[in-house]
Amino acid sequence: MAAAFAAVGGKWKLTLVYWLAHGETHFAGLRRRAAPISAKVLAEQLRELQADGLVERVETGPVPAPVVYRLTDYGMTALPVVESVRVWGGDHLRRSDAPQGDPAAGCVDEVA
Amino acid sequence: MAAAFAAVGGKWKLTLVYWLAHGETHFAGLRRRAAPISAKVLAEQLRELQADGLVERVETGPVPAPVVYRLTDYGMTALPVVESVRVWGGDHLRRSDAPQGDPAAGCVDEVA
Repeated sequence: MAAAFAAVGGKWKLTLVYWLAHGETHFAGLRRRAAPISAKVLAEQLRELQADGLVERVETGPVPAPVVYRLTDYGMTALPVVESVRVWGGDHLRRSDAPQGDPAAGCVDEVA
Repeated sequence: MAAAFAAVGGKWKLTLVYWLAHGETHFAGLRRRAAPISAKVLAEQLRELQADGLVERVETGPVPAPVVYRLTDYGMTALPVVESVRVWGGDHLRRSDAPQGDPAAGCVDEVA
């Protein structure tokens, strides 16, 4: 069971698949988007995503041509999962940010 | 964005929410289900799930009465997310286990 969650488990992998799907293709860009990820962890996560067939690493020419990362067709099958986690996580953040008993949260004007 | 993925990010949290939803309520049982999780990591993950309001820790009586863990109503709102990850992850495992070009995988008998 844990194994079934491992391939996209971890906030980094979901975050990386999300940004790859939204046009971010470079290591530096991914690192900025997923801050505060370290370069070491980002490289590891990208390697694991490649090993799992979700991401491919493309050399665009001889060094120093940039290397780009992109989702494979198979990686795109994970997007509905990413979306379900993102939507729930976004609601969760808003819930966490709203203080318990915040008067503005339940404010009702002129209940007739 | 990474923050939105953090609350259920990590294979352990999803796995723990899954087993709590399936009637596993004790620390030892959760540890067995989520093997090879360490007791230290399990305790940390349960504390974070409690802090996030997804899980509650219930003392069923004075020590040595067992402590049980259960999903809160709010924790149950994460179940569709858990399910989407579980289904995708299960397909992913089957894909990884099937050797590329495995003749059995595409076996068709008597195509008329």
